[in-house]
Amino acid sequence: MTSTTDLRKTVESFWTAAEGRDWAAFAGTLAADVVYELPQTRERIRGRERYVEFNREYPGDWHARIERIVTEPGLPGRPRVPGQAVSRVHVTVGLEEMYAISFFTGDEEGRITGITDFWPEPYEPPAGREHLVERY
Amino acid sequence: MTSTTDLRKTVESFWTAAEGRDWAAFAGTLAADVVYELPQTRERIRGRERYVEFNREYPGDWHARIERIVTEPGLPGRPRVPGQAVSRVHVTVGLEEMYAISFFTGDEEGRITGITDFWPEPYEPPAGREHLVERY
Repeated sequence: MTSTTDLRKTVESFWTAAEGRDWAAFAGTLAADVVYELPQTRERIRGRERYVEFNREYPGDWHARIERIVTEPGLPGRPRVPGQAVSRVHVTVGLEEMYAISFFTGDEEGRITGITDFWPEPYEPPAGREHLVERY
Repeated sequence: MTSTTDLRKTVESFWTAAEGRDWAAFAGTLAADVVYELPQTRERIRGRERYVEFNREYPGDWHARIERIVTEPGLPGRPRVPGQAVSRVHVTVGLEEMYAISFFTGDEEGRITGITDFWPEPYEPPAGREHLVERY
């Protein structure tokens, strides 16, 4: 059983557990063979145990607040089309602010099987488009 | 009428039109009062005309290939919950490669009313996690 609601709830639990440093609950959102990928550094982590450890060891007093979740249900069949979700999370580490954008796939039990993370950083806008944009 | 399929098709048309520099078709995917936001630079563009112009003027021989789209249907009611979608697009400009991640909201006609874009860039992984990760 995987409905849109299920993977949304899993992703909410994932972030709530991370924010609360509840690593048992965090592990409970993950499939045993979860694969984590970070295309910006071309890093990959295989397996729940290592991925939980990666998060547990992550330095800094970081805090995460969910801004948006978009979920799309899986489709039954052989092969089954996995459910998908994306979260956009606002992260603070002291005075530093950033975004984390995470693409998730889920299994039939609503556990996370794949995570692809992006961490975009602030930058100065290039010149030449001031006639079209405002700053906020 | 807004189903998951509608906004997915609109987002596919948006990228196909951008890749083909078909600015009439591109404009056709947008609501007149579309708002574009780029949190990394804190830039905002209001309105279809200016947003089309921003893309038309964008420098470089860029090419965009859709990697993933996740869509969630809207809900009827007052106020209506808008449909949402996210696209992850691989962009090349000559030998340079990057990702564009775009969060879309849609109206009842399946046109795009909001776009929030993120452009994450490659970076070197911090030291201290080599025991957990592989590079690819």
